[in-house]
Amino acid sequence: MRIAPPLTFLMASLLPRTVSSFAVTSTLTRATSNSCRSASSSYEELVSEFSVHKQLERISALMHWDSMVMMPQTDANHHERGLQSAALAGVIHEKATSSRLGELIEAVDVDALDDASKVNYKLMSKIYREKTLIPESVAKEQAELSNSAYLAWTKARDSSDFSKFAPALTKCFEMSKTIASLKLGSNPDNISLYDKMLDDYEKGMPNHRITEIFDTVEEALVPLIDEVLASPHAPSTSCLSPPAGSTFPLSSQSSLNFHILDSLGFTGRSDVSVHPFTTSFSPSDVRLTSRFSPTEWYQGLAGSIHESGHALYESNLPSSPTPINSPLSMGVHESQSLFYERHVGLSLPFYARFLPNITANLNLRSYSSTEIHGAVNSVKRSSIRVEADELTYPLHVILRTRIERQIIDGDVEVADVVNSVPELWNYEMKRLLKIDIKDDAEGCLQDVHWSGLAFGYFPTYLISAIAAAQLEYYIRKDMDFEDVILNGEFSKIEEWMKEKIHRHGSYYGSLDEMFEAEFGERLNEMYYIDYLTNKYEKIYGLN
Amino acid sequence: MRIAPPLTFLMASLLPRTVSSFAVTSTLTRATSNSCRSASSSYEELVSEFSVHKQLERISALMHWDSMVMMPQTDANHHERGLQSAALAGVIHEKATSSRLGELIEAVDVDALDDASKVNYKLMSKIYREKTLIPESVAKEQAELSNSAYLAWTKARDSSDFSKFAPALTKCFEMSKTIASLKLGSNPDNISLYDKMLDDYEKGMPNHRITEIFDTVEEALVPLIDEVLASPHAPSTSCLSPPAGSTFPLSSQSSLNFHILDSLGFTGRSDVSVHPFTTSFSPSDVRLTSRFSPTEWYQGLAGSIHESGHALYESNLPSSPTPINSPLSMGVHESQSLFYERHVGLSLPFYARFLPNITANLNLRSYSSTEIHGAVNSVKRSSIRVEADELTYPLHVILRTRIERQIIDGDVEVADVVNSVPELWNYEMKRLLKIDIKDDAEGCLQDVHWSGLAFGYFPTYLISAIAAAQLEYYIRKDMDFEDVILNGEFSKIEEWMKEKIHRHGSYYGSLDEMFEAEFGERLNEMYYIDYLTNKYEKIYGLN
Repeated sequence: MRIAPPLTFLMASLLPRTVSSFAVTSTLTRATSNSCRSASSSYEELVSEFSVHKQLERISALMHWDSMVMMPQTDANHHERGLQSAALAGVIHEKATSSRLGELIEAVDVDALDDASKVNYKLMSKIYREKTLIPESVAKEQAELSNSAYLAWTKARDSSDFSKFAPALTKCFEMSKTIASLKLGSNPDNISLYDKMLDDYEKGMPNHRITEIFDTVEEALVPLIDEVLASPHAPSTSCLSPPAGSTFPLSSQSSLNFHILDSLGFTGRSDVSVHPFTTSFSPSDVRLTSRFSPTEWYQGLAGSIHESGHALYESNLPSSPTPINSPLSMGVHESQSLFYERHVGLSLPFYARFLPNITANLNLRSYSSTEIHGAVNSVKRSSIRVEADELTYPLHVILRTRIERQIIDGDVEVADVVNSVPELWNYEMKRLLKIDIKDDAEGCLQDVHWSGLAFGYFPTYLISAIAAAQLEYYIRKDMDFEDVILNGEFSKIEEWMKEKIHRHGSYYGSLDEMFEAEFGERLNEMYYIDYLTNKYEKIYGLN
Repeated sequence: MRIAPPLTFLMASLLPRTVSSFAVTSTLTRATSNSCRSASSSYEELVSEFSVHKQLERISALMHWDSMVMMPQTDANHHERGLQSAALAGVIHEKATSSRLGELIEAVDVDALDDASKVNYKLMSKIYREKTLIPESVAKEQAELSNSAYLAWTKARDSSDFSKFAPALTKCFEMSKTIASLKLGSNPDNISLYDKMLDDYEKGMPNHRITEIFDTVEEALVPLIDEVLASPHAPSTSCLSPPAGSTFPLSSQSSLNFHILDSLGFTGRSDVSVHPFTTSFSPSDVRLTSRFSPTEWYQGLAGSIHESGHALYESNLPSSPTPINSPLSMGVHESQSLFYERHVGLSLPFYARFLPNITANLNLRSYSSTEIHGAVNSVKRSSIRVEADELTYPLHVILRTRIERQIIDGDVEVADVVNSVPELWNYEMKRLLKIDIKDDAEGCLQDVHWSGLAFGYFPTYLISAIAAAQLEYYIRKDMDFEDVILNGEFSKIEEWMKEKIHRHGSYYGSLDEMFEAEFGERLNEMYYIDYLTNKYEKIYGLN
């Protein structure tokens, strides 16, 4: 009770549900006092100590959600929320690097643990080790660099002048190399810095695997895209826009969204925000957001379906906040959102199923499900990644991966390569997508990621697309996928994903390991290439 | 960035406003690393260290708001939120009692501080001392007792059988006496336990003051209520209910509310929740909630106006989260809400001002502002405190104060007095309000407060009403109060309150001290008695 501010305190004590807010304080002491804790072993103590900072991370997710969805958007509010997050980040850092954690890690008798606990122990030790290997001064430098680099990036983008961003970007690359080598410590496995950065986002996926996979994808897609775009049978996209002079009202778009999210099995909060995202405060309280355009209905729907894939994964993870119950990797997470967005939400039976709702809610002149299916799957070359379609998107990822890998693991001075980024970028865009970039803004300044030191992040956008296609191949072995979608039996799909992916959390060391165990083979780009080839040959009537 | 969970991380880095979420991490290090902090003196270090747990308390307020207003209301969610709050409560407790704080408090050269800093230092030292005087085991017992007592109370109330609550209530009284004496420590000023409990809610207001004041109020109100209720000119309340067979739609009630809140100067979020409350995450982000009944429009409006008084106080406090910038006391806080609810929102010019909006939004057969003013000010004896009107409410408070004081400071065994609570209660209800209590549910089991160990809380409900009436007396010296309301110049009222009350935060040691300094006299119940007498004699045509 003490913790609640005066005003909320009384309200709290007036509400039945305050049982939980009382329970809080009682759990509090259990969670913070060793003397009172009933822990029977160092491992259990370690898990319980570790869960504290996991719970705090869930709280920071709530603050983030609130600031994007509910908080009045004033500078003052963002400033204050920043200070609050700073205070929380501070204690999370303390908790995550506390000597108490170190002692408990030391004290655990690993051999006595069962398999899952061994894995969980390994994960906790790794997180602890890596966090403690970064001196606070470096963490501070990194935070301040992300901040200034972000501002430099916005300035450079607004004036479409990369040279204004180059110095900050050079620092970002150098700083992230420093951090990666600190994390590697003695680096017994002698892995490269880019390997380490990849590992942060795509656990256990080494650089050489990604290179092989991406090269094969590139080889197949470049000619396929030419073929597709040369086809005289391109589908019309007219059904995506409202009848002349009218718009798609937000209310009817969101009621269509609600109906579809509901059918897919998402039961949490769904709100509107500037950028769609999903966040989880626990498997029972996962929330997603959508946004709608008055002049194009598919992007809003696609965003919601995409987020529902993330949300179902989070909802089906084991509840207790310990590393083994966390999502395996960014690629696995995105494979779930892409599976729902593309393999469900871009499929023909999906539009057959929801045609009545779409035409009714959007008040469209009656299009057939085939026409709508064609429209939402139409392909065009775009210089902007976030506007790219399923077929051309991979090349945007390959371009970025190639450039960042070259800067991180290459032998040339970082600054020298960074200064030539615009040339590299435009050259690759021409080579891969046959697009002439007119300025840096539509070229190498379009993404925020690098200013946030998020190197090794881009590849997960393609890893996930490949994994999603491979999952469609496997799910078709277990059910009549088209019929299931046509009949709206989406719980069958969720159950399958839960069984094959969700329930594992972070038990496996990598996406490859999990696929190996579940399906007898690791990630294989051929499924993806076949899927894209068959799909677009059909839609573009190539044979 | 590290702190954000994978999903929100990328979204974060895609948003301009993430400047703040980057800033976070950079402030984080400033807030947590002494080496990096630019603190020039122990005092500044103390303030900055102290502000961390204040920021964390703002976060717990956000979690509370979310759980009441936004979170899907499932047991699982309340359970998980409880665990999250527990983790946060744990770190708040650690921060609030850290040896680092103790060292800094020791190190400060108090004589070198200016007045305000001296006060702030005293407040921080007191908070620290009292928190550290409570052993963790006791804090845990207290939390668990509130929890079990709350459950015992609900059971007892449901079966209207006080004996089922008596044992738990006895423990609550005993536990709170233990805690109060622990906080008193050596108790040099030799103040009573009830004095100490009062001090927790109404800083610096001793038991003997409250006894004098409440006795005078009781003496004046008992006969006044008889007179009023004997009057043949009781106002009609028919305008409060919808025309037969219809209701007041939520939408029209809330648009009326929004208009009025807006006019009063409240600019924050306003949502709907089971119980109206106000919470503040910073002066720039204060949020209130309302609730509406389809069959009676005034309660909903009154609730919102009440909360707006709390909200304006919070909005006008100095922003940095340090004790001197906190609300002075519960009584001062409630004086603000009651001032707006009663002295503005129950006044005749208020209904003259908003008559068009009320009749339009509520689609009422046209009543005059005088009729509506009469209806919302009608008086009747009620056994239930929360349903009581302005005139009879004080006697409900006096009854509770008398009983809890007797148990805390009396010489009789706690258990013995507790067992006779129903008799005491019913006797007082008869004596003060001439009401025969038919069972414990409508009598001594109606309030949750005691199960939460909130002894010393009830008196603030009357202290605040007296303060509000006294403030009306003073504000009338500085402006034509009726005209200001009639012309909707509510910013003049807010400015006045800001100048006289809000801006002071916790600079003064008590409500008495603040009134003394601002108005030349301390709290004086005679203003309140005169206000009630004149008001109700007029409305009930007593002369």
